[in-house]
Amino acid sequence: MSKPRLLLIHAFSLAEGAAYHVRPPSGAKEQVLMNYDRLAHLLDTVEWDLHPGAPSSHGNWPVETREEFMSVGFNRLRIVREACESGNYDAIVLLGGGDPGFDEAREIGVRHGIPVTACAHAQMVAALSLGSRFSIIDISEAHNMQMAALVRSYGMAGRCASIRNIDHPLPRPSFTHPHPLSGERERWARGEVSGMLEEAVAHAVEAIEEDGAEVLIIGCSGAYWLCEPLRDRLAEMGWNIPVLEGYRCAIQAARNMAELKVTASALAFPSDNPVKIRRRKRVATD
Amino acid sequence: MSKPRLLLIHAFSLAEGAAYHVRPPSGAKEQVLMNYDRLAHLLDTVEWDLHPGAPSSHGNWPVETREEFMSVGFNRLRIVREACESGNYDAIVLLGGGDPGFDEAREIGVRHGIPVTACAHAQMVAALSLGSRFSIIDISEAHNMQMAALVRSYGMAGRCASIRNIDHPLPRPSFTHPHPLSGERERWARGEVSGMLEEAVAHAVEAIEEDGAEVLIIGCSGAYWLCEPLRDRLAEMGWNIPVLEGYRCAIQAARNMAELKVTASALAFPSDNPVKIRRRKRVATD
Amino acid sequence: MSKPRLLLIHAFSLAEGAAYHVRPPSGAKEQVLMNYDRLAHLLDTVEWDLHPGAPSSHGNWPVETREEFMSVGFNRLRIVREACESGNYDAIVLLGGGDPGFDEAREIGVRHGIPVTACAHAQMVAALSLGSRFSIIDISEAHNMQMAALVRSYGMAGRCASIRNIDHPLPRPSFTHPHPLSGERERWARGEVSGMLEEAVAHAVEAIEEDGAEVLIIGCSGAYWLCEPLRDRLAEMGWNIPVLEGYRCAIQAARNMAELKVTASALAFPSDNPVKIRRRKRVATD
Amino acid sequence: MSKPRLLLIHAFSLAEGAAYHVRPPSGAKEQVLMNYDRLAHLLDTVEWDLHPGAPSSHGNWPVETREEFMSVGFNRLRIVREACESGNYDAIVLLGGGDPGFDEAREIGVRHGIPVTACAHAQMVAALSLGSRFSIIDISEAHNMQMAALVRSYGMAGRCASIRNIDHPLPRPSFTHPHPLSGERERWARGEVSGMLEEAVAHAVEAIEEDGAEVLIIGCSGAYWLCEPLRDRLAEMGWNIPVLEGYRCAIQAARNMAELKVTASALAFPSDNPVKIRRRKRVATD
Amino acid sequence: MSKPRLLLIHAFSLAEGAAYHVRPPSGAKEQVLMNYDRLAHLLDTVEWDLHPGAPSSHGNWPVETREEFMSVGFNRLRIVREACESGNYDAIVLLGGGDPGFDEAREIGVRHGIPVTACAHAQMVAALSLGSRFSIIDISEAHNMQMAALVRSYGMAGRCASIRNIDHPLPRPSFTHPHPLSGERERWARGEVSGMLEEAVAHAVEAIEEDGAEVLIIGCSGAYWLCEPLRDRLAEMGWNIPVLEGYRCAIQAARNMAELKVTASALAFPSDNPVKIRRRKRVATD
Amino acid sequence: MSKPRLLLIHAFSLAEGAAYHVRPPSGAKEQVLMNYDRLAHLLDTVEWDLHPGAPSSHGNWPVETREEFMSVGFNRLRIVREACESGNYDAIVLLGGGDPGFDEAREIGVRHGIPVTACAHAQMVAALSLGSRFSIIDISEAHNMQMAALVRSYGMAGRCASIRNIDHPLPRPSFTHPHPLSGERERWARGEVSGMLEEAVAHAVEAIEEDGAEVLIIGCSGAYWLCEPLRDRLAEMGWNIPVLEGYRCAIQAARNMAELKVTASALAFPSDNPVKIRRRKRVATD
Repeated sequence: MSKPRLLLIHAFSLAEGAAYHVRPPSGAKEQVLMNYDRLAHLLDTVEWDLHPGAPSSHGNWPVETREEFMSVGFNRLRIVREACESGNYDAIVLLGGGDPGFDEAREIGVRHGIPVTACAHAQMVAALSLGSRFSIIDISEAHNMQMAALVRSYGMAGRCASIRNIDHPLPRPSFTHPHPLSGERERWARGEVSGMLEEAVAHAVEAIEEDGAEVLIIGCSGAYWLCEPLRDRLAEMGWNIPVLEGYRCAIQAARNMAELKVTASALAFPSDNPVKIRRRKRVATD
Repeated sequence: MSKPRLLLIHAFSLAEGAAYHVRPPSGAKEQVLMNYDRLAHLLDTVEWDLHPGAPSSHGNWPVETREEFMSVGFNRLRIVREACESGNYDAIVLLGGGDPGFDEAREIGVRHGIPVTACAHAQMVAALSLGSRFSIIDISEAHNMQMAALVRSYGMAGRCASIRNIDHPLPRPSFTHPHPLSGERERWARGEVSGMLEEAVAHAVEAIEEDGAEVLIIGCSGAYWLCEPLRDRLAEMGWNIPVLEGYRCAIQAARNMAELKVTASALAFPSDNPVKIRRRKRVATD
Repeated sequence: MSKPRLLLIHAFSLAEGAAYHVRPPSGAKEQVLMNYDRLAHLLDTVEWDLHPGAPSSHGNWPVETREEFMSVGFNRLRIVREACESGNYDAIVLLGGGDPGFDEAREIGVRHGIPVTACAHAQMVAALSLGSRFSIIDISEAHNMQMAALVRSYGMAGRCASIRNIDHPLPRPSFTHPHPLSGERERWARGEVSGMLEEAVAHAVEAIEEDGAEVLIIGCSGAYWLCEPLRDRLAEMGWNIPVLEGYRCAIQAARNMAELKVTASALAFPSDNPVKIRRRKRVATD
Repeated sequence: MSKPRLLLIHAFSLAEGAAYHVRPPSGAKEQVLMNYDRLAHLLDTVEWDLHPGAPSSHGNWPVETREEFMSVGFNRLRIVREACESGNYDAIVLLGGGDPGFDEAREIGVRHGIPVTACAHAQMVAALSLGSRFSIIDISEAHNMQMAALVRSYGMAGRCASIRNIDHPLPRPSFTHPHPLSGERERWARGEVSGMLEEAVAHAVEAIEEDGAEVLIIGCSGAYWLCEPLRDRLAEMGWNIPVLEGYRCAIQAARNMAELKVTASALAFPSDNPVKIRRRKRVATD
Repeated sequence: MSKPRLLLIHAFSLAEGAAYHVRPPSGAKEQVLMNYDRLAHLLDTVEWDLHPGAPSSHGNWPVETREEFMSVGFNRLRIVREACESGNYDAIVLLGGGDPGFDEAREIGVRHGIPVTACAHAQMVAALSLGSRFSIIDISEAHNMQMAALVRSYGMAGRCASIRNIDHPLPRPSFTHPHPLSGERERWARGEVSGMLEEAVAHAVEAIEEDGAEVLIIGCSGAYWLCEPLRDRLAEMGWNIPVLEGYRCAIQAARNMAELKVTASALAFPSDNPVKIRRRKRVATD
Repeated sequence: MSKPRLLLIHAFSLAEGAAYHVRPPSGAKEQVLMNYDRLAHLLDTVEWDLHPGAPSSHGNWPVETREEFMSVGFNRLRIVREACESGNYDAIVLLGGGDPGFDEAREIGVRHGIPVTACAHAQMVAALSLGSRFSIIDISEAHNMQMAALVRSYGMAGRCASIRNIDHPLPRPSFTHPHPLSGERERWARGEVSGMLEEAVAHAVEAIEEDGAEVLIIGCSGAYWLCEPLRDRLAEMGWNIPVLEGYRCAIQAARNMAELKVTASALAFPSDNPVKIRRRKRVATD
């Protein structure tokens, strides 16, 4: 079988001169994709394109609020539909931490027989295979509640030990936070102390010791770079705990579904013109 | 105290000549509001305006799919924000069955100190006060799954006995259903047999006898007219079970919150610029 | 429609000369009803009478133990039945924090078509509409366990973040507690420091930061006065969290049900001579 | 060690000439105790007295409604207290199916160091040791809901597959039921067909095949005689399923606790004058 | 990166002349591995060896009882340890439906840094990514209960709609079943009617319509061949539902973990000589 | 009735000269059985034999890992089968904390009509009758996770407040722990300070105050001696909480089942040759 063809779609693109970029606004796909060096070996197993995401209409900064997540999620659907209709892809990967537009995109994908995956969802599912409960290492108060909404929506509440707020929010014009997320990855890469990594380690230890986490996942794509550093720091302390980030999990999930030729269940995302109907639905408790 | 001032906002408005209206596209608020005669005594206890909803951008027909719900939910947020900023209202009621845009609207409301309520949410909360489990009498396969998503999102899975598909979908151009929802209310009002009511009765009995429902709520605002006819038919059979529709529940909820001067918790919908943060969140199981 | 007619029934009445009163033993209804100034605007929307409660037979002090709750609950049923039979009321409100006799009173009410509400139940239901989990700010070890029994009975365990013991019990002859509840409201009203309020604030912060509460409710009617002071103190600290007390919630719930002409489900409280029976019941998990 | 001394207390006693007796109103304890022949070998392992129960004050018939359960439960507490204070007993067994007054009696028992057990509670706990889910074979619509309330209260909802209504209610003046419970045991004992047993078998099969029951317990003490006949009938059909009745389970539970010198936890039933307090309680989900 | 090296280990091997083989007892790995043609494209993405499994010591027939599962699970551990110690593999796949020895094998794997996957576990995790609840299409009464034990052990009870017994057990000497599993695959391959497939279709429809399944997984490796035929039959009826079998899911899971360089959490399978300890563990509810 | 005849089976026996014994390797049954003085009065109510357990094959030390539990569990099954076939026993008690081989032994027992009980299971069931949640006082990181697996398997997750690691592991050659379990009982018996008891007290207080435990059970049979000392120490502090150990609970459970002539449900442990089958199984959530 030839390699599965994947389209990776960023959550949104900011205007060129925006002051609050968290990734390069343009360039070769290998340069634009955050933490590419970590993903390269995995991307070698598939064919892939990268879409920069729909231009943001909520403002020229990254998303944290529920309304902003809805906005970028809605804007991304057009790209998903066009990709499905193009016939060029075997699966679609929605990049970004809070899974904006995921359920709606899955609905579109189901109708075209194209699987769609997203980062938080894929991380949570992968975490389930590694331990009984996961904690989410996440960046801010508002972002935490988007993650909480996803946990509920995905039926993972019983498996989520906690959502941890390391308080390094995305940069935005509405306020000046003493320690935003931006620049921390670079600080760490230079071998300097990253306050963000230090906070992540402290919270991870609490998640393990107090909340009962057996696996850690990361909430925001701007924090996915923490994956290996956090894992290594914990291992040095004696805590051998899997740490997952979203890009690899979502890419693997998309590749798997493409290989199996399955999408999300058409019973979870039924057509508005269904061949068969069910008299009754029950909602899973978790 | 003067009466609370409420703004009721329809989920969307279709273009004037649309073929798929389920309510009058224009007119006095008392004429446009479906089942006004049932609501009049309640609306007398408040001051109220009615907003026709944002013009639909998904197409010229009512919503059933996840994508359509996202579209109309997103479009409605602008109206919510303007109403909050106007200073003219003590509470906002989002009309329509699938609660499009509710969480995002609550986030906006919290920041302005204005409570926002929605029909499915208000019905589910009210149902909890009347019995241990409710079933949702709902109209179609796709609409059912939007209701299921709400049940999960609101943490009501343990209290939801079932979602019942009476298979009378909203009219739409994509197909010709043998018995859409449209016209059924009028048929019943003329004293004729309504297949929709008959199906609702049959499903309600199954919900009571098989699924364990102690309360019934109605999924789609286009089916809210069933409230009294369904209740009466069941009572005639010997089943005295409360049946709720969304408009009254959402209006009462909005009035209550306005009187108490509370909104949804700012801890559930935190600011992107919060004064205080929590280190840890837990997600409620249900 | 004319205003709903409500009968408010106190949990019990102590003998005139009792040493352990927590409210005036007699007087005009506006004087006897605790925190009347907070309720006045709400009571203006209904017609209301106040019943002082059945004379206590357990002793001449307020209730805290399971046995005492059963005693006053049982004694109150006669009043409920007479009120239902009188034809004078559209709804009945059971005052008092631990909801003594609520289920039995609802059973009576269902048979007369009269809704009955109670303070803890109404608070919990209202809390669900404002956030995903609530904590109960409560007064003593024994009282806490009555609240815990109610949480279980009402199927709210998954939504209850914690029950907090601020350790200001009701006064009683069996012991001398260093800081009973009595006198604290007056202390606060005089502008002095109330140890009870201070404890409530400390516990509320723990409930928010450690237990994951998004809404607070108050366990004992003798502590309902804390509602606004506690809310304001938390808001000053940066925690904007809804705080509910039972009287307003129970009155609103009764008014709502009267307007909707619904009672608790007859399937939850079936007749001993039912027209229809169900072969099978399932018990909701929470 | 000498044998544990048990006091068995009936739920209530009807007046001598009552028309609705389900057991002999007076006589030797071996004659009054229903199904004594089944219990004899177990009672040989303890010393035991039998108390006829407090005279009923709700009326001269057995209990089915929530109010009646509260009434007889409340009336029984005086007997429990006197038995605890007498020093004559190592444990107390509350006879009767719906466990009236159990929690309140346990509260009393804890303070005296005397364990108190009840029939439904003991059956449910015993059932847990035999399989993952139990169904309750029960007699009537109203009685079912008392059982449902117990399941919730005891935190057993997740382990209760169903409550089955075999529709053979206790006799009472309010109506003439075509097939009350009374006389069925005698019919079966005479070798005749008992409609009650036939219904129990039919419901048990449904409980096994449809509801997922792995163990059966019986709801009403007036139906405990079904234990062996039902078990045998099912075994003849090929269903080897444990069937429990309440008297033996409650006696064994009382004997066990007496031997272990434990009562219900004082943390579940704390004193109104506790030595130690907990800042926080959590309510178990089930 | 070079391809991950996987060792696939059968659950057990029967003696050469055994009467109850369900797969070829010897031959090239491509011939021995059941349904190889379905797996070939996936196995091309890895390097793989196949181990025939430890010789059975429970008897010369396939496993169905709890004791037999324990026996073959225990026997397989030696192979797992040797494979881990060999340094030849990046991941280990335990073949067979009931996951015998999986937790113990994972414990061994964690200590060597080698991920271990198993068929039922991998299917359940994969199912979670496709819909909210899955049903298990399974072969016999005893095998069903092994699957139920796995569902509980993996914390999937809330996500498992049902386990379906199609009553085509594995062949064994203890009895003559009218329609064992053996020969059905061949019957279907010849284009004849397979009673096993027909039963699977009938049960799948019930799982969808009555139990609320949105995804189907298959319980026994001897039934994995049903995957495509069952999916196609359901699709012809109008039910587009994902159907998963265990080999592909377990191989994908192993490949994924090898690529991510993660194993099951060392906090779930701690060393008997741990560097760090936790004071407290909590058990996830589901 | 004559006394029930019980066979108590140790989890394993170490070779005579083993360095890591936690109980006398041989001697009269009253000498070999740990804490016999605490059990004597209970054992007087039954007839009993003691089996030393199958010789260990995992090594010459006590068990802590998942693999070791599987090994001794598997080895014990032969003894169980022989005891069942002997006709000499009315019930079998599996001694030891982690219940090795319990489900498989129950399967064997069911087929012979002989009840089988185990220590952790019996403790958890007994704990449920005394309070709403229990904590497990347990000895080590690895042993904790075996207990966690049992909690999940027995469907007790919702009732388990926590598993507490007092960090006094069983002795084993793989490492030198600063304070293993061995010798602590003797230290305490001599009136000296036992670090193990001190840790148990500290953890028990945390379990009560932080985790919400209302009952305590003990994880490892090597720690059962803590039962009374721990209970007494807590009582001195003002915490009157039941503390259970496994031997008495398992013996009582076996005696009870023998008296009732019940075993575990044959529907939970069905035959490989069942008379009746169920189309569908559901898995209980907890």
